[in-house]
Amino acid sequence: MTPLPKHNPLTLPVPKPALLFYDDTQRSLDLRYFCGFEVHDPFIAVRAGRKKIGVLNALEFGRALKESTFDQIIPLEDLNEAAKASGIEQPGPADQIEALAGILKIKTFDVPENFPSALLLKLIKKGIEIDVIDGSVFPQREVKSEYEARAIRDGNRCAAAGFAAAEQMLRDTRIMGRRLVHDGRPLTSEKVRTAIQTACIAAGGFPADAIVAGGDQACDPHCRGNGALRPHELIIIDIFPRMFKTGYWGDMTRTFLRGEASDDQRKLVKAVADAQKAALHKVKAGVMGNAVHAECNRVFDERGFATEMTPEGAVGFFHGTGHGLGLDIHEAPRIGAVKRRLRKGTVVTIEPGLYYPGLGGCRIEDVVQVTDAKPRMLSRYSYKWELR
Amino acid sequence: MTPLPKHNPLTLPVPKPALLFYDDTQRSLDLRYFCGFEVHDPFIAVRAGRKKIGVLNALEFGRALKESTFDQIIPLEDLNEAAKASGIEQPGPADQIEALAGILKIKTFDVPENFPSALLLKLIKKGIEIDVIDGSVFPQREVKSEYEARAIRDGNRCAAAGFAAAEQMLRDTRIMGRRLVHDGRPLTSEKVRTAIQTACIAAGGFPADAIVAGGDQACDPHCRGNGALRPHELIIIDIFPRMFKTGYWGDMTRTFLRGEASDDQRKLVKAVADAQKAALHKVKAGVMGNAVHAECNRVFDERGFATEMTPEGAVGFFHGTGHGLGLDIHEAPRIGAVKRRLRKGTVVTIEPGLYYPGLGGCRIEDVVQVTDAKPRMLSRYSYKWELR
Repeated sequence: MTPLPKHNPLTLPVPKPALLFYDDTQRSLDLRYFCGFEVHDPFIAVRAGRKKIGVLNALEFGRALKESTFDQIIPLEDLNEAAKASGIEQPGPADQIEALAGILKIKTFDVPENFPSALLLKLIKKGIEIDVIDGSVFPQREVKSEYEARAIRDGNRCAAAGFAAAEQMLRDTRIMGRRLVHDGRPLTSEKVRTAIQTACIAAGGFPADAIVAGGDQACDPHCRGNGALRPHELIIIDIFPRMFKTGYWGDMTRTFLRGEASDDQRKLVKAVADAQKAALHKVKAGVMGNAVHAECNRVFDERGFATEMTPEGAVGFFHGTGHGLGLDIHEAPRIGAVKRRLRKGTVVTIEPGLYYPGLGGCRIEDVVQVTDAKPRMLSRYSYKWELR
Repeated sequence: MTPLPKHNPLTLPVPKPALLFYDDTQRSLDLRYFCGFEVHDPFIAVRAGRKKIGVLNALEFGRALKESTFDQIIPLEDLNEAAKASGIEQPGPADQIEALAGILKIKTFDVPENFPSALLLKLIKKGIEIDVIDGSVFPQREVKSEYEARAIRDGNRCAAAGFAAAEQMLRDTRIMGRRLVHDGRPLTSEKVRTAIQTACIAAGGFPADAIVAGGDQACDPHCRGNGALRPHELIIIDIFPRMFKTGYWGDMTRTFLRGEASDDQRKLVKAVADAQKAALHKVKAGVMGNAVHAECNRVFDERGFATEMTPEGAVGFFHGTGHGLGLDIHEAPRIGAVKRRLRKGTVVTIEPGLYYPGLGGCRIEDVVQVTDAKPRMLSRYSYKWELR
């Protein structure tokens, strides 16, 4: 086996002189949070004391000066020159970081848990001491400022524009036997998704993977949905747009049915709606996340909706009740079986669902900010679902 | 400093019994390539011999059965049960991987260079031997199959639909002094971007960060562009849509000018067009990437377009000539100063540009597949740029 370093560099987050990133801002949202702008390729960034330092190549340098929140921007070319002066012909990130450490007189770096392993080992080999943070490097990211809460609310307004377009399209269909006909042609998941995307773009964001899944397709909660949508079947629509201006996400789900629902479908939708209300009622600063999740399970148990594994996949309620939302679509905290207290200011989705092939799936999702009293709603759209 | 493990686990890629991933398919395109479907949250995947094994929770299990290319799918819940049986109350990824290694009787894993550092250290601590691959785990990803080349060409057809919409919008403007007026209102970058996004969606893909940058804004090659577009100014439009169905990208750039160009603007555009032609002429299997890049520099030098650093950023030609394109928007190989031979089947962009605040910026970008003879064009749109 690989011998374990005697001083295992895995430590708990503590204030340290320098924090080192090597990532792009799509893959590391902590880095996006740290530097305040978007960079599509991996780059070096350091927090040294209270100073934020970015290392950008000529391609990004001018834009970093204008758009980023860095206090200092060092041209990557300077580090390459320094590395070349030490005899390295084609300097890589480890050589560049070594040169930067020399310039800044830094001997120890903290790095985030997702820091690339190969780079970690190369830096250790160069004699640079690295402490890998176990957990979030910015636990404060979980608690949203007023600016952030509004950015997320804007994301949900964008999602709501998508729901309005989708609902209108469903209402505009004619029911012809087992077909939903729109503008003379069968209505498909793809057509509804295009309408949602177009509406969201006009509202300032984009939902890359908007889910429009009818019938049994909806029983895979992350199935995007494809092909013809049917009358009298439950259709789950989950819209999660990222706003162009701020980079923050919205995330909402509604379930619709065009035509007439059966009694069993109505019981299913009512159970999910009641579970969501019960969970929302429980959300409060200091409450355990798993207690919120347990509320959903309680409602489903009382109504006789069982959760179990089958060879084709799970049925019932087999996902978490919610997740944090912000610069990332799924971020801390998770609301599920994990025991962890909800913090004031946290923004989370509350999205119970039930899925039974043959009957169909239903999920209802809203976004709230945790307060000391009842949660602040950051999403808004009608819950009317049966479109006759 | 952190003591270096005696057996430094950083090795060159060699065939090994087991390859371990822990990532999501947005952040790791190697994992996306490996498993053939999209998962938004990090999960465990292993190549053991020739077998592809995925570990998915109940939420993703059914969809993985239908959509993924895994040979075997293990429910995450099974690994959690196994970990709990060893006395771990809330198992994390390291505990789950330990349980999986026990089930599969694997003692050594290769991991990709971007494997999360914190997880690496936890696995080492558990006595699991890990070799971190330095370089690509799937070097074959660089060489594109016919399916992949077509998927990228589709991406560029989608981009071309965006150019058609943008060009029409520019042509439809009236020039009123320093303003471009469209439908009675000033034409803005945002308005053109929305038209591009709407056209791309209808063509099956989406360009999240389409660049529409006029005048000096275009001199930051990655500036998205905002506010009013002006007549008689160069406008760089860079459209890189990701296709919904395949996950492959298109990536094209054209530069337009609405009104009448100056002699200096014409010289600038001509130099970039000629540099692109010279570079394309050079692209061939076995040629050094830096030799292709040198062709662009040669043309710019001959025409007297200097590249230099200023306190506000670089001017001239200060980015690479191109990059690989596929499941990731920027992937291997880079075409720039780095010395590396082009391989047959590789798909790359060829995108020289010149940027001088005051005069403006110009970039022209196409996508080609490297062959033994002249490159195969995978992008197509008119080069007509002066829209009078």
